[in-house]
Amino acid sequence: MTGFKMIEKRNDNNKQYTVGVVETAFHSFAEPGYELRLESGDNLGPITQAYETYGRLNSDKSNAILVCHALSGDAHAAGVHEGQNNIGWWDDMIGPGKAFDTERYFVVCSNVIGGCKGSTGPSSINPMIGRPYAMDFPFVTISDMVNAQKHLIDFLGIERLLSVTGGSMGGMQVLQWVASYPEMVRSAIPIATTKKHSPQQIAFNEVARQAIMADPDWRDGGYYEHGQPNKGLAVARMIGHITFMSDQSME
Amino acid sequence: MTGFKMIEKRNDNNKQYTVGVVETAFHSFAEPGYELRLESGDNLGPITQAYETYGRLNSDKSNAILVCHALSGDAHAAGVHEGQNNIGWWDDMIGPGKAFDTERYFVVCSNVIGGCKGSTGPSSINPMIGRPYAMDFPFVTISDMVNAQKHLIDFLGIERLLSVTGGSMGGMQVLQWVASYPEMVRSAIPIATTKKHSPQQIAFNEVARQAIMADPDWRDGGYYEHGQPNKGLAVARMIGHITFMSDQSME
Repeated sequence: MTGFKMIEKRNDNNKQYTVGVVETAFHSFAEPGYELRLESGDNLGPITQAYETYGRLNSDKSNAILVCHALSGDAHAAGVHEGQNNIGWWDDMIGPGKAFDTERYFVVCSNVIGGCKGSTGPSSINPMIGRPYAMDFPFVTISDMVNAQKHLIDFLGIERLLSVTGGSMGGMQVLQWVASYPEMVRSAIPIATTKKHSPQQIAFNEVARQAIMADPDWRDGGYYEHGQPNKGLAVARMIGHITFMSDQSME
Repeated sequence: MTGFKMIEKRNDNNKQYTVGVVETAFHSFAEPGYELRLESGDNLGPITQAYETYGRLNSDKSNAILVCHALSGDAHAAGVHEGQNNIGWWDDMIGPGKAFDTERYFVVCSNVIGGCKGSTGPSSINPMIGRPYAMDFPFVTISDMVNAQKHLIDFLGIERLLSVTGGSMGGMQVLQWVASYPEMVRSAIPIATTKKHSPQQIAFNEVARQAIMADPDWRDGGYYEHGQPNKGLAVARMIGHITFMSDQSME
């Protein structure tokens, strides 16, 4: 993914300002007969979305902010999980007194479909065959991710989001939210993102994919019982990392 | 290698202008006791260099032009080999009536040491062990390549080159020739090259190496009896190709 690495550094002097212990919740929809129609024309269902919330939704439901994660992110944006030390990826930004002040705002972050971190994706069991979807998982677009998120926002009873924000692939979702559901978005904060990829970005992403697929542990996508194609992923990540930086910034 | 792909297209309307059938010659030096001292401090020898020449050296030996090839190039810069259709990589530029006019100039192109296309390199038999050097081949620098080429130029009886030219890694050799042997170079034509790599270029090259080394067929460099790490090489070439082009040129 071109462009964006969320800040993971924690300011240990401000521990008292974190949202504390949080839990990941799950919302399921798109049951048989009500599958999600994807941009490709394929249907996907049933769908589970992992999500977390921080702060409280106010009485007129006007203080909800949706946070969209980047390619390798997940629903765990702030706080820690019980008994663990896994601080959320945007903890510096979300919490009491922080930019997304949980004393004032109700912050929602959901794992995108296809993301494989709690939401339905290629690693999920395909109910038709009882095994992971793997390469049978349909192509999902940014628009599909946003359409799935809308089900969650509807489920939470929110008619209009105070803001939608996120960086890189998260920022793409922000732009898509505005395009798909303008009446549901009061403000948008897209960060380090793009409305479309340039040919060079497409090329970098294609090389990253080819690096993964060149790893024999890729096994044509059927690696779930055997372990990840870690060497290919490492090369892909190196390629991605270069695109996060300018030549000047590497000096 | 960042930056340069020599033109391989042949103008079939101009067949009569090619240098015709050529042969690769070989020059050996650095026999035991006279090894080439490398920049690293290691010694390398004996050394064979593959080279080709086009045109004729004039009586006062003042018309010699050294052509230096890019990373994946070799000594075969112009014409074809007997019974083959393998046109040299810079045939468009070298020949009667062409930019490097073989009616006027004596053109020399040698395969760099380490290049493994006729010159001593990792695929050559290490005389100490009777097997390919592979990872035991010493690191060679642009300066080492030029020092080896100088032996060939001396052997050909040329005291001063009318010009030294080449692109990409060939251009680096051009710059090094001027730096190492200024009195031997009357003019220099470095093309699409650099005196040093930027951090971004170093990063791209490192990812290319990592892509090759991630291929199990790399076998820690000991692949000579088994076949090349082709998948890793393919990914590395894709990475390189992106660096040959600007974002604009890919539109």
